[in-house]
Amino acid sequence: MNSRRDFLQKLGISTLALHLAPVSGWANTKNHDNQAYDGPVLRVAIMGLGSYGTRVAEAMQACTKAKLVGVISGTPSKIKEWQTKYSIPEKNCYNYNNFDDIKSNPDIDAVYVITPNGLHHDQVIRVAKAGKHAICEKPMAVNAMEGQEMVDACKKANVKLLVGYRMHFEPKTLEVIRMRKAGDLGKILFFQGLCGFTIGDPTQWRLNKQLAGGGSIMDIGIYAINGARYMTGEEPVWVTAQETKTDPVKFKEGVDETIQFQFGFPSGAAASCLSTYTMNNLDRFFLNGEKGFAELQPSTGYGPIMGRTNKGELNQPVTVHQTVQMDEMAAIIFHNKQPVVPIDGEEAVKDLKIIDAIYLAAKTGKKVEIRL
Amino acid sequence: MNSRRDFLQKLGISTLALHLAPVSGWANTKNHDNQAYDGPVLRVAIMGLGSYGTRVAEAMQACTKAKLVGVISGTPSKIKEWQTKYSIPEKNCYNYNNFDDIKSNPDIDAVYVITPNGLHHDQVIRVAKAGKHAICEKPMAVNAMEGQEMVDACKKANVKLLVGYRMHFEPKTLEVIRMRKAGDLGKILFFQGLCGFTIGDPTQWRLNKQLAGGGSIMDIGIYAINGARYMTGEEPVWVTAQETKTDPVKFKEGVDETIQFQFGFPSGAAASCLSTYTMNNLDRFFLNGEKGFAELQPSTGYGPIMGRTNKGELNQPVTVHQTVQMDEMAAIIFHNKQPVVPIDGEEAVKDLKIIDAIYLAAKTGKKVEIRL
Repeated sequence: MNSRRDFLQKLGISTLALHLAPVSGWANTKNHDNQAYDGPVLRVAIMGLGSYGTRVAEAMQACTKAKLVGVISGTPSKIKEWQTKYSIPEKNCYNYNNFDDIKSNPDIDAVYVITPNGLHHDQVIRVAKAGKHAICEKPMAVNAMEGQEMVDACKKANVKLLVGYRMHFEPKTLEVIRMRKAGDLGKILFFQGLCGFTIGDPTQWRLNKQLAGGGSIMDIGIYAINGARYMTGEEPVWVTAQETKTDPVKFKEGVDETIQFQFGFPSGAAASCLSTYTMNNLDRFFLNGEKGFAELQPSTGYGPIMGRTNKGELNQPVTVHQTVQMDEMAAIIFHNKQPVVPIDGEEAVKDLKIIDAIYLAAKTGKKVEIRL
Repeated sequence: MNSRRDFLQKLGISTLALHLAPVSGWANTKNHDNQAYDGPVLRVAIMGLGSYGTRVAEAMQACTKAKLVGVISGTPSKIKEWQTKYSIPEKNCYNYNNFDDIKSNPDIDAVYVITPNGLHHDQVIRVAKAGKHAICEKPMAVNAMEGQEMVDACKKANVKLLVGYRMHFEPKTLEVIRMRKAGDLGKILFFQGLCGFTIGDPTQWRLNKQLAGGGSIMDIGIYAINGARYMTGEEPVWVTAQETKTDPVKFKEGVDETIQFQFGFPSGAAASCLSTYTMNNLDRFFLNGEKGFAELQPSTGYGPIMGRTNKGELNQPVTVHQTVQMDEMAAIIFHNKQPVVPIDGEEAVKDLKIIDAIYLAAKTGKKVEIRL
């Protein structure tokens, strides 16, 4: 039992199907750029071999520019299993005590940190100190201060820091952003992001304040926060927030069950968002402008994203998000490619500043100014 | 140019089509109870011959239990036009100065007040004093104090006071309420109501604080307020609200352009609502429970309501809301029929108390307790 599997199940897609990606009918993400690739391949070690790490590893099998070559785990049996499955040599296997030695391993370019949120800060800084590029799963840290320290450490070590914002490469998402930038929706007035799922096992790390850094906002609400920014194309200047807790046993002090939050933007546009660990059937982005609207539903799940605008259904290809993300990250690292929406540490710090503000707004009941 | 026509146009339904109700493919609302009716017929005078009054008059042509028999207007030419169109005798025609004389008219049972919001209070009290049942368009008044005075006046005069909550009789709405009551959705966790349209002519009474009593909340946001109550089956205990104004020329002091508001309910359920005069493409109710969800979209427009639940599409018949409402009001007045969701003055005062609280919350930025 883990939250990501629950999340997956709510979307009605079997875990099996995702292990077979790219599946029939989906875009062939292996050759998603439709040309042979003979440039450098990003050699990645995954840190944290849990369910999302497994998903990334499976998706990476279809990558052309990135390759899984190493693992970092505290569980020897998992390392063995991954070694067999992905032909990982012994010399590329590390545990949490010795992974600083990766510094002297010329066969690993980057480490993708997919561990509990509360551990990202120290682990990413150790990766940076080892001179490897750091890829970090979202949320990058548990608050903006930690996030900024990670950015600073990577800058000092002269390595890249990228964050697993897989939606930034999703074709229907990018089409809505394109339409908004082209003025097809007119002046943007409103964004709505509803994100949530019913979380399972009460003993999992996502419900542990120390490891998760918070509750639903950290894990799933961050999609609405980040989405509000890339969908509107603006940075919020204020936030209000309201928390509701129906199960204080499962959701302890500091672990939010459900938070509604609202943003105001400089243009006068507003956003209304909800983040929850207590509801399924919530996965919707809605962007409304003076001339038109765009709806993504599901908007951030692992399965096919679906959407429509005032002009009709969106028909951009369905991709395996993590495959595209890893190939794009290789291009960013090797070729300094500029993604449509940034995925660097600075981008992640902005989300963390907003999370800090949301928690403050929910706690005080007051409108909190945001300065990014 | 008027707001109701704008609202209609946004739904893509021509005014013409609604004058031909019931149209082919819709339920035959004339015989919506599928049996001949030989009981008493509610003889109604309409006060205020504007666009919504016209809509009600047209819809009433298909009623079996209610009949348009009189008019009250300040515009003699309109009275003439209606007399011709609906065969209304001269003796059933009044203006705003002399309509108290309706007291001695035995051919009129009830007056449907469809005038600007700020006039309802005095006009309904005059109707009550004339000994006629009062039907009042929503919002019943511009604040709870005025609303309570209307309730008291009608009680004192021993006449009914009913409010034009047409959605309370809408079949898909009622099906969602039935499902929720039957437990099909499980414990209710969340309601969302998005209501709005782009209002036209800046000189219309709906944008005049004196006549409208406020802005979008009064006219369109009230659907989300009322819907939050009948969809969840609970009364809110707190509200928070955030106003955004992008056009202070069109939306003057006291006339809200866009307000987001959030409710908390005793069970721990939450609601997130938006009311606006600046956006189209907003007409959605969403009810989420532990076991399932229900979505109505459009949820409150004049055209066909559409909906789905976790079990699939809702296929209840499409009705002309005002036809059903007037027949049901006749049954309530003559036979003391109890509607599934109340439509009396007390129900309307609850909405007005909530509106008072929303304005206070938006103004102060504080969570406001609601006591209904």
